[in-house]
Amino acid sequence: MRLTPQEQMNELRERVAEIVDLGQAAAVLGWDQETMMPPKGAEYRATQQATLHGVIHERLTNARIGELLSSLEEPDVQSTLSEVDRAIVRVIRRDYDRATKLPESLVKDLAMATTRGVESWRRARRESRWEIFAPDLKRIVELKRREASCIGYKEHPYDALLDEFEPGATASQIGPLLNQLRNETVALLARIDQSPRRPDRTVLEQPYAIAGQKAFGELILRQMGFDFEAGREDTSAHPFTTSFGPTDVRITTRYDENDLATALYATIHEGGHALYDQGIPPGFARNGLGESASLGIHESQSRLWENFIGRSLPFWQFALPRLIEIFPSQVDNASPETMFGAVNRVARSLIRVEADEVTYNLHIILRFELELALIANEIDVDDLPRLWNEKMRDLLGIDVPNDAVGVLQDTHWGSGLFGYFPTYSLGNLYAAQLWATIRRDVPDLDHRLSQGDFQVVLSWLRQKIHRFGRMYTPSELIQQATGEPLNPQYLIRYLNDKYRAIYPPA
Amino acid sequence: MRLTPQEQMNELRERVAEIVDLGQAAAVLGWDQETMMPPKGAEYRATQQATLHGVIHERLTNARIGELLSSLEEPDVQSTLSEVDRAIVRVIRRDYDRATKLPESLVKDLAMATTRGVESWRRARRESRWEIFAPDLKRIVELKRREASCIGYKEHPYDALLDEFEPGATASQIGPLLNQLRNETVALLARIDQSPRRPDRTVLEQPYAIAGQKAFGELILRQMGFDFEAGREDTSAHPFTTSFGPTDVRITTRYDENDLATALYATIHEGGHALYDQGIPPGFARNGLGESASLGIHESQSRLWENFIGRSLPFWQFALPRLIEIFPSQVDNASPETMFGAVNRVARSLIRVEADEVTYNLHIILRFELELALIANEIDVDDLPRLWNEKMRDLLGIDVPNDAVGVLQDTHWGSGLFGYFPTYSLGNLYAAQLWATIRRDVPDLDHRLSQGDFQVVLSWLRQKIHRFGRMYTPSELIQQATGEPLNPQYLIRYLNDKYRAIYPPA
Repeated sequence: MRLTPQEQMNELRERVAEIVDLGQAAAVLGWDQETMMPPKGAEYRATQQATLHGVIHERLTNARIGELLSSLEEPDVQSTLSEVDRAIVRVIRRDYDRATKLPESLVKDLAMATTRGVESWRRARRESRWEIFAPDLKRIVELKRREASCIGYKEHPYDALLDEFEPGATASQIGPLLNQLRNETVALLARIDQSPRRPDRTVLEQPYAIAGQKAFGELILRQMGFDFEAGREDTSAHPFTTSFGPTDVRITTRYDENDLATALYATIHEGGHALYDQGIPPGFARNGLGESASLGIHESQSRLWENFIGRSLPFWQFALPRLIEIFPSQVDNASPETMFGAVNRVARSLIRVEADEVTYNLHIILRFELELALIANEIDVDDLPRLWNEKMRDLLGIDVPNDAVGVLQDTHWGSGLFGYFPTYSLGNLYAAQLWATIRRDVPDLDHRLSQGDFQVVLSWLRQKIHRFGRMYTPSELIQQATGEPLNPQYLIRYLNDKYRAIYPPA
Repeated sequence: MRLTPQEQMNELRERVAEIVDLGQAAAVLGWDQETMMPPKGAEYRATQQATLHGVIHERLTNARIGELLSSLEEPDVQSTLSEVDRAIVRVIRRDYDRATKLPESLVKDLAMATTRGVESWRRARRESRWEIFAPDLKRIVELKRREASCIGYKEHPYDALLDEFEPGATASQIGPLLNQLRNETVALLARIDQSPRRPDRTVLEQPYAIAGQKAFGELILRQMGFDFEAGREDTSAHPFTTSFGPTDVRITTRYDENDLATALYATIHEGGHALYDQGIPPGFARNGLGESASLGIHESQSRLWENFIGRSLPFWQFALPRLIEIFPSQVDNASPETMFGAVNRVARSLIRVEADEVTYNLHIILRFELELALIANEIDVDDLPRLWNEKMRDLLGIDVPNDAVGVLQDTHWGSGLFGYFPTYSLGNLYAAQLWATIRRDVPDLDHRLSQGDFQVVLSWLRQKIHRFGRMYTPSELIQQATGEPLNPQYLIRYLNDKYRAIYPPA
């Protein structure tokens, strides 16, 4: 007795809902681990997570899901499904294929190689000795190449890896965009160098008591529209956002008692991620569409709030009086313009995670170019330190004193994350294009922001991005929200305009 | 190709380890829910828990476990197994049977009836109207009777329910013990009434800042031997202890700014539970033996620390100087004897959870007698309010003004928990017998405690109780640890001695 399409769809939805529930349970364990867990809890937590992820994998790769998908993909069945149900079939097909295409032996080899990779990377960075990490990285790259060929791709093996984080993105599509961004950024940096103005950062570098920073961050989060009844903020070594459904979204930050910017911008950044997660419609929460369209789209939300709003002059026009109430002796004499300059100082630096808005993308482009060549077998792992240092000189004009602050600075490659870095810059590109559209749609935007009316931005994002979850691919979503495909000119123009004001020509 | 016994045992162990992991994951979600979760998170958390518990049930009731157990129970196989492996087979057989013996329809009916029962009980208590709760309770009692007949029993249907919380215990075994305790306690209470002395509690009823209470509680926990690297203490509406493995044990307490005893004794009580959980050997953590022998044995640990140590004179000889450092103005003039008297005031009262050490067991005995008759069909749900009030007059000599503070005060029955209450008094009985044995083994015990040497007690408990997890039944464990079966005279003697000192005869 064959099930009707609607019965099949219901069964698929039920199976997906359970997988979502278990994924959220694993997320609770992950959050606890980073924020609350006592140190000795790590060992059993790893076992609990391994078992839970094993159950999730087992359920996702259940052959019954494959049967349901095949049947629901038949053209005459598709035409009877709602748009949402078709989207569910599409995203679960993608997840199912990615989960089933890799042979179990490859999954195990990758798990082992990356566990060792993270370990040896940590040692290698501590001692600044590349050779400690290189053999493990060689093995990882080899396995990632095999992963790419198992997953399949049309043009470039890198596309198979990129697709995990940015569905539908390809090297041939984003390569030229990043290249334009690269050339324009190098030119902008040269102009900044020649400016006689150097913003002063000392207003940020004073003692700021953590309790006050916390109160200020919470005030900003509330103003952004973060719902504290449906989320919370805690402290962790590395700030992050995690969601257990749209009504329980947790963010973390970290505090530097002598630098106001550290916690504030981590809070706004994670707050941007969190608003996306809180904006997922309840109806999507357990159907497989209740996630971001991609890492790049997720990052566009955090960057938009952090940089386009949080590092703007109107933001400080609103925020400074509130900050003065909490830290009178530190900022009583500051103006919104002082704060605006201080939080936007540009500096050629070695470390990606400390980079400013202008140079940040150069750090990403460097990594993207290396990854692409590595996966294509055009360069060898042994070439990486030399190529890294050459590119740092080309792109940022600085010499790398040792590998610890060079090729060994990031954990991503040791963890097997290839194709992940570009999503950071895609986030910036998406954010700029969304921001330009918001500006067009809301003519008095700066005035509103200076009054603390962030709701106008949140409503726009809810309407154009959040409510769709991952119903559309990133490129569909951007096309719909902005009326055109991804176009790097928005970010280039934004950066040029903003930094010409901060670093005027001589 | 049949597996060897050792291979079967390994497979059973692997399956059990996964079930344990998933149970711990569910415990993390439960802890988070009570301590950290934002209010709106409740709905999805309920779904996550339901799914996770569904997976656990599915794995525990997998027919393969039944096959492995049957095969491992064969006499010629048993003789090849280690003592630990035999214990694993025994406890997993028990869990498997309890999980598989109930038809799915009964499990669902019970889940629905108790969900409704908790709801209507809450309303009934708020409005003090028994008739709101009675119909749901009737249904629950009927289903619990059916549960008892599905589980099976030798003598009394109540035994099948009791066994869930206190493996091996029966009404015919604990009934006479509780009856002795009842008669002796009633007599003791009469003597206390006639004493001219009335300990003064006012030293506890002063403003105590929460930060100071927290510091004091932490000091006491450390002194008890609680490992903060393998656990933490937080705040929740109702204090509890939960464990995600012996290296991650979480306790909670609650604070009353105007009563020192509330948080302190909750902390010591939960600390006693936590020391048990932290004392489970790592080798037991995932093999199914890494739990308490029973609720009663678990309660013996919390009561031993809370009452036998925490409410003793030697405890206050140690603790008072530390308390004076934190709260000088509140306790500068107090003596250890003042504190000892204050925390041991006896009062005939309506509410079980507020009862003192002497009257507490009478509250339990009342419930035990009613439950027993109810499950045996000797009384009807409609009789409960009247019988409750009669027994309160008989046992405690007080009149119940309304059902909200009488028969409706506890959540247990609405949740379907029959057979649970006696474990509280069993905990007191076990604790007294263990304490008498510790006293015999450590002649200078009081002196050591007055010096803050609680390690001597912890070591003893680790050696005699904690390290066995649930390898033995409660009665085996007590026999081994104390050299005789459970004997209520230890608690009776302890209470008589202690309270004769506090309430001397005229």
